[in-house]
Amino acid sequence: MSDEEIHRGLADVTVTETRLSDIDGEAGQLWIAGYPVADLAANATYPETVYLLLHDRLPDAEELQSFEDRLCSYRTLPEPCHDAVVAAAQRGAGPMAALRMGAATATAVEPNDPEADALRLIARLPTITATYWRVLQGQEPLEPRLDLGHAANYLYMLTGEEPTDAQVAGLETYLSTVVDHGLNASTFTARTIVSTESELVSAITGAIGALRGDLHGGAPDLVLEMLESLEESEDVRGELGARLEAGERLMGFGHRVYGARDPRAAVLEDAAASFYEGEDDFFAAAKAIEDVATDLLAEHRPDLDLETNVEFYTAVLLHGVGIPPELFTPTFAISRVAGWSAHCLEQLEDNRLIRPRSEFVGEHDRGWVPLDER
Amino acid sequence: MSDEEIHRGLADVTVTETRLSDIDGEAGQLWIAGYPVADLAANATYPETVYLLLHDRLPDAEELQSFEDRLCSYRTLPEPCHDAVVAAAQRGAGPMAALRMGAATATAVEPNDPEADALRLIARLPTITATYWRVLQGQEPLEPRLDLGHAANYLYMLTGEEPTDAQVAGLETYLSTVVDHGLNASTFTARTIVSTESELVSAITGAIGALRGDLHGGAPDLVLEMLESLEESEDVRGELGARLEAGERLMGFGHRVYGARDPRAAVLEDAAASFYEGEDDFFAAAKAIEDVATDLLAEHRPDLDLETNVEFYTAVLLHGVGIPPELFTPTFAISRVAGWSAHCLEQLEDNRLIRPRSEFVGEHDRGWVPLDER
Repeated sequence: MSDEEIHRGLADVTVTETRLSDIDGEAGQLWIAGYPVADLAANATYPETVYLLLHDRLPDAEELQSFEDRLCSYRTLPEPCHDAVVAAAQRGAGPMAALRMGAATATAVEPNDPEADALRLIARLPTITATYWRVLQGQEPLEPRLDLGHAANYLYMLTGEEPTDAQVAGLETYLSTVVDHGLNASTFTARTIVSTESELVSAITGAIGALRGDLHGGAPDLVLEMLESLEESEDVRGELGARLEAGERLMGFGHRVYGARDPRAAVLEDAAASFYEGEDDFFAAAKAIEDVATDLLAEHRPDLDLETNVEFYTAVLLHGVGIPPELFTPTFAISRVAGWSAHCLEQLEDNRLIRPRSEFVGEHDRGWVPLDER
Repeated sequence: MSDEEIHRGLADVTVTETRLSDIDGEAGQLWIAGYPVADLAANATYPETVYLLLHDRLPDAEELQSFEDRLCSYRTLPEPCHDAVVAAAQRGAGPMAALRMGAATATAVEPNDPEADALRLIARLPTITATYWRVLQGQEPLEPRLDLGHAANYLYMLTGEEPTDAQVAGLETYLSTVVDHGLNASTFTARTIVSTESELVSAITGAIGALRGDLHGGAPDLVLEMLESLEESEDVRGELGARLEAGERLMGFGHRVYGARDPRAAVLEDAAASFYEGEDDFFAAAKAIEDVATDLLAEHRPDLDLETNVEFYTAVLLHGVGIPPELFTPTFAISRVAGWSAHCLEQLEDNRLIRPRSEFVGEHDRGWVPLDER
């Protein structure tokens, strides 16, 4: 490789091998730890998916039970973490800022142990998010219910009510579907931090920071806003067309690695359908809006392959499950923390410090001028 | 570039241009924002260095005054940040863990503004570190003294005593010397996080996590431990030789990018000398140990060019200034936060999401086996 060549964005550079997930962007296919995403999401509970990523095989019944028990035992936040999250909500910090503060303090009192830290963070991000949300709403935060599964307890801690089986199943499908996705920016951030032999909690905190950015974690809540504003429209095509003419982006379309429809969209679409049966026309409206939008995008930007991405049906499914839109991105993190953790453990198996080069384009010979002569 | 080629560690990949610093590893030279490191460290106060990095030129007297006033106005920690740091110390968290927690909560109450966030973090890392340290020592944390400069206030907040001019000058030299150093792992982490258009505080928190790792921030406190254990020795050569024979690493030697003596070592050595004049033989002992160690390393590992690195005289200088060894790495961060911030602002000037590729080496066709058949 030439020294002069600048690989801005590293889009053409392969930095590691991984066994965790594989994306075929042209075909619109995704495999997670050996399974097509649709198979995994249809069959696995979220703890099974996490076990699979961390151990590279499915657990038997006994292993799964003991794994879930261990996750469960970590759910309660250490006091400094709880206090930091409550303070963040009281000050009106945003949900991803609160998650960063919670993650940074989530293992304050335990010694470094990458595998145990992974489980602590996987167990605690839902508690952090729910604690933040309750306080932000002026409600008392709830203690985790240790008799409920991972997804069910998250929903319980948000609302104070035991969720229905359908809500739990919908959320489990979501959590398994978005758990890992190649070497995206947050996953790469986590691997870079842990490559210094730093602690897993630092890597996950950094990854949450990267996920927060608009170019990465995106804004599935804005998809919902768009759908709700268009749901009653009598001229969806006209309104979307006007947005495109005005240079606006349509939320929920386009992804750097897919030239086809994001395979996760189909999984989330199927899971979302059941929440809207006979209730209202929101799901039908969303599907109609998707059709019109992809048509219009193909006309306006035929160069870009702007197909439906994961955010579109994330919004539809999580709205159906009853997650508040402000928590869509934190809920993404609640799933992805398992992928981040598995990537960190994989990086540590055969580690090499990640330290690329920069090309200097500044000066070498500025002469020092004393303050009083400037 | 071939798709199959894996650039583990990215050591041969150039990811960005920068005007901030340039390293000539073979010649052992370092330029920071246009000045050889020795010129900068000999002439600039730390706030001048920070201004230079952020604005690409030196300030005039008025600009410098208003810049220092602004930094000063940010020194006090927001309450949630103060509380998180106090809790970390009370729980016995390590200094870099406490710094991560403090940074993650450092801008809880302010809106996102990359440039203002940079100044907030630069102003607050010393307060975070000193607050942590006082509480860890069972002392009351101190309010910042707004009549003292950046370095002087940090020393005051650690000890409760106004530092001498020599202490301030020694610390200023250190802070300007290590402020930026090409695209090291923590700086690259910061650029990667901010490349998602995330907030600067998330990028700096991630960078602190990366600096914490043994392969990056290293362990200048272990240099001091080695020097103190050998200071009285009558057979330095024998003792160091025995360590090498036992496969131990000698602390303070070797750096991935230098094949020569780290140019920062000379700057820090010069600054350190004054602290030991006539007082004891520690400085002379350190120099003698350096000579013996580099001799022995050249014999034992002629393939590796293990020359004196920045950590060696960091330990000697900061020990002379009176910084406790546990705070050597946080004090590194207190300097480097300006480099991280300047790199983030530079990244945002012409941003592109940093997202490399991975090569999938797992399976595609694992058939799903139900739990009760495993």
